[in-house]
Formats: sequence, structure tokens, C-alpha cells
Amino acid sequence: MSEPVAVEVPAADNSDKAAKKAAEKAAKKAAKKEKKAAHKAAAGAPSTENSAGDAAADASESSEADVSQGLYGNMPLNRSENFLSKSYSPIKLLESSLDGKSVWIRGRLHTSRFKGKTGFFVIRHQHYSVQCVLSVGSAVSRQMMKFAASVSKESIVDVAGVLRKVDSPVAACSQQEVELHTTEIWCVSAAEPRLPLQVEDAMRPDQQQASLATAGQEIKLDNRVIDLRTPTNQAVFRLEAEVCRLFRDTLAAESFVEIHTPKIISAASEGGANVFEVTYFKSKAYLAQSPQLYKQMAIAGDFDRVFTIGSVFRAEDSNTHRHLTEFIGLDLEMAFLSHYHEVLDTLSRLFVAIFKGLQASCADLISTVCKQYPAEPFEFLEPTLRLEFPEAVRMLREAGAEQGDFDDLSTPNEKLLGRLVKAKYKTDFYILDKFPLAARPFYTMPDPARPGYSNSYDFFMRGEEILSGAQRIHDPALLVERAQGFGIDTAKMQSYVDCFKYGCPPHAGGGIGLERVTMLFLGLDNIRKTSLFPRDPKRLTP
Amino acid sequence: MSEPVAVEVPAADNSDKAAKKAAEKAAKKAAKKEKKAAHKAAAGAPSTENSAGDAAADASESSEADVSQGLYGNMPLNRSENFLSKSYSPIKLLESSLDGKSVWIRGRLHTSRFKGKTGFFVIRHQHYSVQCVLSVGSAVSRQMMKFAASVSKESIVDVAGVLRKVDSPVAACSQQEVELHTTEIWCVSAAEPRLPLQVEDAMRPDQQQASLATAGQEIKLDNRVIDLRTPTNQAVFRLEAEVCRLFRDTLAAESFVEIHTPKIISAASEGGANVFEVTYFKSKAYLAQSPQLYKQMAIAGDFDRVFTIGSVFRAEDSNTHRHLTEFIGLDLEMAFLSHYHEVLDTLSRLFVAIFKGLQASCADLISTVCKQYPAEPFEFLEPTLRLEFPEAVRMLREAGAEQGDFDDLSTPNEKLLGRLVKAKYKTDFYILDKFPLAARPFYTMPDPARPGYSNSYDFFMRGEEILSGAQRIHDPALLVERAQGFGIDTAKMQSYVDCFKYGCPPHAGGGIGLERVTMLFLGLDNIRKTSLFPRDPKRLTP
Repeated sequence: MSEPVAVEVPAADNSDKAAKKAAEKAAKKAAKKEKKAAHKAAAGAPSTENSAGDAAADASESSEADVSQGLYGNMPLNRSENFLSKSYSPIKLLESSLDGKSVWIRGRLHTSRFKGKTGFFVIRHQHYSVQCVLSVGSAVSRQMMKFAASVSKESIVDVAGVLRKVDSPVAACSQQEVELHTTEIWCVSAAEPRLPLQVEDAMRPDQQQASLATAGQEIKLDNRVIDLRTPTNQAVFRLEAEVCRLFRDTLAAESFVEIHTPKIISAASEGGANVFEVTYFKSKAYLAQSPQLYKQMAIAGDFDRVFTIGSVFRAEDSNTHRHLTEFIGLDLEMAFLSHYHEVLDTLSRLFVAIFKGLQASCADLISTVCKQYPAEPFEFLEPTLRLEFPEAVRMLREAGAEQGDFDDLSTPNEKLLGRLVKAKYKTDFYILDKFPLAARPFYTMPDPARPGYSNSYDFFMRGEEILSGAQRIHDPALLVERAQGFGIDTAKMQSYVDCFKYGCPPHAGGGIGLERVTMLFLGLDNIRKTSLFPRDPKRLTP
Repeated sequence: MSEPVAVEVPAADNSDKAAKKAAEKAAKKAAKKEKKAAHKAAAGAPSTENSAGDAAADASESSEADVSQGLYGNMPLNRSENFLSKSYSPIKLLESSLDGKSVWIRGRLHTSRFKGKTGFFVIRHQHYSVQCVLSVGSAVSRQMMKFAASVSKESIVDVAGVLRKVDSPVAACSQQEVELHTTEIWCVSAAEPRLPLQVEDAMRPDQQQASLATAGQEIKLDNRVIDLRTPTNQAVFRLEAEVCRLFRDTLAAESFVEIHTPKIISAASEGGANVFEVTYFKSKAYLAQSPQLYKQMAIAGDFDRVFTIGSVFRAEDSNTHRHLTEFIGLDLEMAFLSHYHEVLDTLSRLFVAIFKGLQASCADLISTVCKQYPAEPFEFLEPTLRLEFPEAVRMLREAGAEQGDFDDLSTPNEKLLGRLVKAKYKTDFYILDKFPLAARPFYTMPDPARPGYSNSYDFFMRGEEILSGAQRIHDPALLVERAQGFGIDTAKMQSYVDCFKYGCPPHAGGGIGLERVTMLFLGLDNIRKTSLFPRDPKRLTP
């Protein structure tokens, strides 16, 4: 075991001014050689901090007395030496009513500009930011200025100061009414001076004018930890969390039970293609392409209404704007009494609840995203527009597109249909019911009234599919017959087939792609913008 | 494409009495040969239904007039022919205040007993059940009795009847105040006559007396779809869903953001052992052993407080009562200001909120489970008891156990410690802080004050670990140094190390095993009882 470092170094305490001063006094008493020993003991501390230099120590060695000593410097690595219940003010709450108040803030150094005896720097926390001012004077030494100017962008810093109302708004910051007149500045965690991605570049719109650097998608994803710090990403993933919350809360209120389904399965669940293989001890297994079979087993197991949120895996070598090899499925399954439209109605209400919920609780997040990625507001009808497949075929043909009666929608036709629906009905969201049977998985219930069609449906947002679902076959004989029609070896899915032999209520359900819903609600152009750490055929890191 | 079946069969409508009578009249008009043709067309219908026989049709063919014709029979396979907004009464709401009311119910045939001119059968829905009575009389024919007696257990049936208050409680049912005097009975989905597992057997305590059949765990898991129907399982998984809800709601109220992390990763996240390998197109990948590295990256990406619920994979060949190869992790990570005990306090409050929430909202579920699996109520203190590792060592040694100062707790010592703590402090839940550094992963922050210890902790329920967590090293140089001490090739986890190079707040977190929390809260003896479809080295199905 290699042992921890630097336990002998006097702890500079970032959180309590009195304690800090005491530490400073003690440090002054120490002889130079003791200081050297301390430096040596601190050798295990981060190299970035070492290279930035211990400004406070440097200052005490200089010939000029430093009036700011103990008011700035690099904090030692936080190893939880002290528990301090000191209060920091959230940046988002800094406003003109606090004029004259002394506060501590913690955030990242977003930008800084030092010239002569005055410096300005912006401290950012999540999607909030405030401007700080530092001026050489009776309490601020040139050494302190020098230290502040040396802090690298993206470092985490603690700043103390007095809030002052400003005459004209600070345009560059979220907190436009005030600036912080700095009295202390401490570096908590230093960033390397050279960053692989500038947050300011990551914040620019994709189509930025040529004169300004715009970071490309691959650079942003390669440096996702920096990229995630942009106001847009802070907003996108908060909104995505809200989609999940609304999904769950809406369904829980309708007596759905949350379940968890296995991802490692013994046989490819949906026909063998596009499935990832796993080495499972001495045998082979697969990653589930959907929780669907397990949701259905939960229905056969009397849970009646279930939902699950979890990872879904597709080994498709598709390098498109909307395919991931791993994504989050919001899945539900529901027993019905007489008709699968009971489920379709539930799904329709669910989406309306999600859209309304997002518009109600995420207005600020949506507008934050729109600043970087402008998009038309998402439009939907209540109740949801519902079309049947033959109507879609008719609309497409009228618009000059080729579309077979029993063919699945191609991606271009899907998008065209979205535009036609939007023009005719003024909605970005609609349901397409009654898909051709041949275009659906084997477990889809055929439509008894219209040969060639099925009791299945897709939901679309801005012309792209975000939910696929159907009434499932709950009869084992018909299920086997249909599977064999698809050339599926039912022996390999015996436990799935068996589960319908012991009585099962008629049921239907659907699977929703979380990243697609977030992407299309916000009008974004790439699903990688709504996956925290996206996975595609070419990307497995970070 | 093989085509759907039986579209010509007249639909017997289960949901509307008038419609049913009309259908019956039409059926009577039909000649025998037409009936035969219809049977032939229905050949695609489930063989189980065929073998059970079409009782209504049989009856009309018998010489005796059937006064009950049109009041019973097998429903055709539900293909959503009709949308009926007919109302069924939930079994749980059937009580004496409804005396004299006519109702429809849908549920499973739980048990039936027919003798002479009277039959009794119990209809079960989830953890509720009601007794039904059928007596031959002016409206009930012998043929109808015969049909009712022929319905196999676990079949889904619709029953109409008049509710009657009973003089003495129906002990075998949840609804003890009433019984349903049956006027119609329709089989919606027939179960095979021979079931691989009887629900009544699955409902018995594990230690049932030898005279009664008790289904073993493997049989129950092999036939999980039947096993899940027991009142206990209906309760266990509802309670488990509530654990997740309380986890999320408590954290969301403390400004945590829900995230989703990738399960397919490019390098083994925690050292290479016990990891499942995945074939990823033309290369290799691995299944994440925890979301921890990604939670940390979210912290470095400024989300400050994050949680995630998702599948976690461990390729451990452990066949114990508490190990699964795939389980659900409730994970959180949190930036702190001065000390990791800020996080420990949050975690402590979280668990108290979960336990209190369960006791408040799940009292009936807990008592349902206790009937099959008796257990002492779960006890906890507020605030949570917190011990440090050296104190645990002392207690164990005082009790005569061997325990090294810097050794991890063995499973027997962990359990013994749980008993000692329970005896001394009257709690089934406690926190053990300050684990030996050598017993923890490389990314654990060493304790600066006490060499050999670390800023890490485990939480225990009934003497078993359910959470493991720590302050993480947020400095890249120290992280690399520690990883190398463990012999880990840091080149393979460069993107993880890199994420601390651009500034990262001090942070701590933890991972909770959902199935363990549910198991131990309820005092169950095996984690397979709290995993819907458990995965272990020997089980990949269903």
C-alpha cells in the first residue's frame, strides 16, 4: 500500500477566516527550512497545484510586505480535515437586494481579465454566473492580483467579497444586477492551464460564424466532462430528468408499478439480429434489446400495469443522428379489459402530461437551450391527433411520395409525413395506429377485421418515431405460429412462450426512447446531444 | 407472412350482456354445419381453449334445453374487436355495503370446489380474493355448473353476480364480508389444466410442515410467472418500487439530478476481475460493475448532486443468499464543501426517509409478506447510529471474534457485528465509517489524520452491507499513484483520470443494492426473493 501524503503540512482552512489568520500567523513563525520540508511533504499534492505555485508562500518570501497575506492562495487538496458548517451563497441568488452584503461563493473561474491595478473575473456555477472585481488597494496587494490572474480557467475557486449593485447590467452574466468586490480568493481545485476544449467554444451555436471557434461534436464528446458544464448541457440533462419524473409520476398515479428487468438474457429477444453477445462464465448470453418480454411476463404474473426505465442495447451498425447502441428505454405494459385502445388512450394522456409538465416546470431550461440551439416551440394537440396507417399512405401519395400499402415507413417518408401532418393539423406530435402486420415483430396481435394490418402503433415527435407499441399476442399457440412465420426458433424462448400457458390477460404496451423524446422536444439535431455519455458503433469512451 | 386466424367467427362479447344475448340468438339460428365451419376457422385459436371445449356450443348440442345458454362459456381470443367502456368492480372494493348490488369482476380462478348442485370458487386479483357461489336453479343450468367446474385453476375469468353479505367471515379470502352469487361466468384466457407450480404451494412458508407441499425456490423461480402471482410477491415488488420512489423523491427534494450512465464500457471499471466481456462489433467491451466513474464525471461536469438507478453487473461466481450477477444499483454522488460527512449526513437522512416512508405507506404490504415469511419489524434510530471501524474491531474482539485492525470484515464478522450492535443499540441499521484503506478501491480518499484508514463507509441492515461509499480522490496525480499501487493500468482509464485535470470539487457518494435493501427491510433470507427475474451464475432464465 502506498501511503497518503502531506499529513504534516499545516492545513490552510478555506472556510473560516479566523482560523485562516491563525494558520497564517503560525506559518510566519516557521523558518524557511521548515517551509522547504513542508513543500517536500506536499510533493504528493497535485502537480497542477505545484506548478501554479504556492502564491502565498512566494509572497512571504518576497521583499515587499504582503497586506493580503492569508486572503488568497491554493488550498491544499481537500481530504476532509475539517467539518465546517460555513455558508456559501448560491450564485443564482445573488441580486441587488443583497447590496452591501458580504458573501462567500464557490464556482469555476469562467473568464478573467486583468489589466493594471484592476481585474474582472466571472465565477460560474452550473448555468449561473456572477462578475467579480479585484482592485489593488489598502487590502488587496499586487501579489494577490498576481495570484488571481494566475488561476487557470475552469479551476474551482472560493471567493469572498462584498456584493455591490451595478449601474448598468452585467451583460455577460446570469446575475446582471450585482458584482462581487473581492476580498479573498482561494483555489480549491486547479484546472490545467491548457484545456482540450474551451467552455466558451462549447457554448457556441453549431453554425457560428467562421471568425469564432466552434467546437465540433467529436471534440465536445471526447471532452464531455468539460462540455457538460455549458448552460445548455446543464439544462438538457435536467430536462431529461424531468421527462423521467413525469413519466413515472403520471403512470404511478394510474396504478402502474415500477419493475426492473434483466439485461443479460439467455436468447436474443427479438429475433437474433442486432444483439450484443456476452461471455457468461463458461457460456454465452445476450444483452436485452428491450425489456418487452419481461414486461409481458410481469403482466402474466398479475402486476396488471407496469413500467420500467432502463438501458436498452442494439448492436446496429447505424451511424445516424438518431441511433445509439445503448439508450434509455421508458417502457410500459398494461392489461386491458376489452380493447388495446384503452392502452393507447393511457399512452396519449401520458405524453400530454409530459409535454405540459415540461412546459410548466422547465420554461427556463427550454429557453436556455434555445439560446444555443434555436428551435420552434413544440406543438401538440389535446387530445392527441390519431391517424391510421392507410390515411398516412394516402397523404404521402398525395404529396408525390412512393409508399406501399403494407410497407413500413422509410425514414424520408416518416419525416415527410411529419411535415404534412404539421401543415394540416398544426401538431408536432401524433399517433399512427394500425401498422402493416409484416412490418412488426412476431408477437404483435394481427388486426382481426383488416387482413394485413395489426393492432400496433407508433408515436411521432417532429416527424420522428419515439414510441413503438402494440397489443401483444397472449395466446401461446398463436404466438408460436407467428414466431415460426418469422423463422424464429421458439425452443430458444420457451420460458417466454410458456408464460402464456397459465392464463394471461389481453395486454398492450410500448417502448419510448428517452433520448429521442428529449432531443425532439427541444428540437435538437442529434441524439448524442441528449445522451450523457453516448454509445455508438464508433464511440465507447468516455 | 402467415395470416391471422378466425376472422369469420362470430364474436362472443364478454363485456355487455345485451350484446351477448344478441350474439347468442344469432348463434342459435346458425345450422350445425355452419358451426362446424366456424370451429374449423377457429382452429388457430389456442389449443388449451379448444381442449377445454366450447361448453356453450356443447350445451346447445345436448338434448336438454339449457336455461343458462349465453351466460357462460369460453371467450374467443381477445383481438380488440370491440371497445367497451363497461365497468368492472375491483375485487378489493367488494364489501358488505354493496350487499344486493350486481357486479362484474375479472380475476383468476384461484380454487374451486363443486359438489352436487352447488359450487364454490374463489376469484383472485393480485393480493385480493372473493368467494363466488353457483347453485343449480331456475337461472343456472347443470351445463353451466359443468362448465364452471371444468375451468382450470389460474384461468382468467369474468364473473357476474349479485353480492351478498355473509353471516360468518369467509376466512380463505381477503374480502371476508361478502360472497358473489354468480349469474354469468366466462373464461377469458384458459390456463393449462396441469400447472408446473400451484399458486397455493408457492404461497406457503418455506418451513411448512411436511404434510403440505411447499414449492422449493428453484421450482418457483423456474415458473416465476406463476410464482409472482402470490400475495407475497405482489407485495414484495410493490414495496421495492416504493423504495425506488422514496430514494428518488428524497434526493430530488435535496436538489439531486437524475442521470443515466452507460453500461457498456471500454475498460473494466474497477480493476479487471469479475467483469463480463461483451463483443462490441469487431472489438471487445465490458459491462459496467458500477456507475461510479460516470457519476464522478457528472460531478466534474458540474451537476453537483446526481443519482442514478440502473443495472449493475458482477461476474462473480458466488452462489450465496445475497449475491446476484446482475442487480439494481441505487447510486448517488455529491460534491461537498468541506467534509465528506456532509454526504454521510445526506445518506443517513435518505435512509431514514426511506424506512419511515415504507412504514407509513406500505404497512399492509409488509404484513402481507410477514404472513408467508415472518420477521421481526425493522428497527432504526434517528439520527442513524454511526460507529468507526476501530470501535467495530473492539466490539468483535470483546465478543471473542478474530478481527485484524486493517482487515475487511468477513461475512461472519459482519453478521456478528450486526447482532452486537442490535443488542447494544437496539437498531437494525447503522453506519460504519473509516474503513481500512487497504480494504477499499483505489479511488478512495485516504484519511489524512489516521494512516491506514480511509474516508469511506458502509451501511448495514440486519447485519448485512447494503451501501458502500467514500470520499473519492479528485486529484489526478494522487489517483494515478493509488491506481498504480493496486496494479491497475491507468492508460486504460485515461478518460476517467483526465476528468479530474480540469478542476473538480471534492465529492463523495455511495452505491446501494436495491434487492438487498428490500430483502433486509422485510427480513427475507434470499436475494432471489426480491429480484423479479434473478440472475446468478447458474440462472439465466426465465
